[in-house]
Amino acid sequence: MARRSIGARRNPASQEAILDAAEAVLREAGIAGFSIEAVARRARAGKPTIYRWWPHRTALMLDVYKRFKNSRSFPDTGTLRGDLVSFLEHHLLGFWKGNLCGTVYRALVAEAQTDPEAAKVLIAYQAERKAFSARIVDRAKARGEVPEATDSALLVDLVVSYAWHQLLLDQLEEAMTHAPAVVDVILGGVPGYRG
Amino acid sequence: MARRSIGARRNPASQEAILDAAEAVLREAGIAGFSIEAVARRARAGKPTIYRWWPHRTALMLDVYKRFKNSRSFPDTGTLRGDLVSFLEHHLLGFWKGNLCGTVYRALVAEAQTDPEAAKVLIAYQAERKAFSARIVDRAKARGEVPEATDSALLVDLVVSYAWHQLLLDQLEEAMTHAPAVVDVILGGVPGYRG
Repeated sequence: MARRSIGARRNPASQEAILDAAEAVLREAGIAGFSIEAVARRARAGKPTIYRWWPHRTALMLDVYKRFKNSRSFPDTGTLRGDLVSFLEHHLLGFWKGNLCGTVYRALVAEAQTDPEAAKVLIAYQAERKAFSARIVDRAKARGEVPEATDSALLVDLVVSYAWHQLLLDQLEEAMTHAPAVVDVILGGVPGYRG
Repeated sequence: MARRSIGARRNPASQEAILDAAEAVLREAGIAGFSIEAVARRARAGKPTIYRWWPHRTALMLDVYKRFKNSRSFPDTGTLRGDLVSFLEHHLLGFWKGNLCGTVYRALVAEAQTDPEAAKVLIAYQAERKAFSARIVDRAKARGEVPEATDSALLVDLVVSYAWHQLLLDQLEEAMTHAPAVVDVILGGVPGYRG
């Protein structure tokens, strides 16, 4: 067997423990009280241990966020319209509305506006999520609901953009009621448009 | 004549001088160096004078931003598609890309995520701008391009959402090339969609 450096691998147990501590700090102290130092104290870990895995607080916050996200099921209703409405209403807006995640995600977006390292983390995460979410449109292509040439990325981008905008303007609740209308415009355009 | 309180009216000359100073501070020191104190120093004004007109730095930043925005002409190409493409490509994405405004607006959005006063200012500004921008769709109704029942606010919201998302992910340049495709989806839906 090849020698492996133990230091180079993450230790799943400790990593989970630190994410648990990070989540607890976020719940109790909010974004303003969230720091690598506070998480280290809570986890009874050394700051260097945390920094070895997460280079800055934004990366750690994002991993707490991802853990919530990954525990959610992804929409698969059998139709493109059903999937997109569910994606927008529950996977994005409702997910942010219901728990700590909306607050954490708003903070991530905010930090990315002034901190280039945070921006890199958020942009990479967005690219990864959108590639994943484009499966909704790809499945619709396989079913013949939309032509092969449909720009999956653009459709996902429009839905995610709408959701972000509502989150950042603190209008999640109202936006959830608009989710079917938003998807209907994106799929079918403006009824009666004569361009 | 009714008595008027001089103190209650803004003095246009001084207000412009302070906005000039605020713009100069933003250009030279960036968002990080922008403070009421720095603007007061630059304008040779007292901090209380500035605070009387602008309760916090976000409100002052927004007024600098608005001054840029108001100096731009609003699209009126004669067609809904032309107006929306111009609105998205030049009035939003290109406006943010070309000058200080994108950086200032990103900072405004970021501050609104953690500061409730900044959020109020941004939400009020957005509501005002969107009501104004809905004229694009209202003119199209008058021309018979879209039915009277068309949800003007929703169409504007979709275009603005897309623009915000691209600004916040620092993808303005690429987004500008997608502007016509974005508008075509919003107006016409997905070509060949069989829902």
